[in-house]
Amino acid sequence: MPDPKVMEAAVHEYVAAFDAGAPERVAALFAADATVEDPVGTEPKVGQAAILEFYTASMQTGAKLALDGAIRLCGPYAAFAFTVHLHWEGKDHRVEVIDTFKFNDDGKVVEMRAYFGPSNMHGFG
Amino acid sequence: MPDPKVMEAAVHEYVAAFDAGAPERVAALFAADATVEDPVGTEPKVGQAAILEFYTASMQTGAKLALDGAIRLCGPYAAFAFTVHLHWEGKDHRVEVIDTFKFNDDGKVVEMRAYFGPSNMHGFG
Repeated sequence: MPDPKVMEAAVHEYVAAFDAGAPERVAALFAADATVEDPVGTEPKVGQAAILEFYTASMQTGAKLALDGAIRLCGPYAAFAFTVHLHWEGKDHRVEVIDTFKFNDDGKVVEMRAYFGPSNMHGFG
Repeated sequence: MPDPKVMEAAVHEYVAAFDAGAPERVAALFAADATVEDPVGTEPKVGQAAILEFYTASMQTGAKLALDGAIRLCGPYAAFAFTVHLHWEGKDHRVEVIDTFKFNDDGKVVEMRAYFGPSNMHGFG
């Protein structure tokens, strides 16, 4: 089982690296064969190269993440709520998201799933 | 696809029915063959009878639920953060949880997963 302290630190590093615009730091949190399903129901990105490409594109929006409340740690899973803040075309936008990370015994993320939808997107109208 | 309004209403009814101590109202939100994995990693409760029994026991603790922030709706899934408040042996306790519900096209929950662990349990020491 992965160490809860390593899992919690990985979530904080995910947010910090995203907000620093450092996609390589985010990709480094994932295992080589990890999957990223963001949002849930879309085709997963599979493997480090695809994940790095996905986060590189995501960060080009200038989006910043802020955790909403405590990280939930449950066996090999971390689940956490956060808000994405975007400034785009002169307007503030936000998206409310919950992510789940599943970790391997080495403390690397093997599966990420992101839950959000139209009702969680504000300021885009 | 289930109606997002029905899904959101089901989450609010889940909290209200739990807080009212009405396990039959909670069980009515689930499909006949639904699964409840609470917490994730434990043996799922399967089917209405097992689910009713589980919530009947859960409510005997007098626990009350309070949503933390917006419900995330993503295709057939709802994900939501909440805090469980318990008064037990003269002390206040709380547990931070994130649940995911997967709905069928009839708006009934077919799969519930609850994420929490020791780091989310406060006041039990």
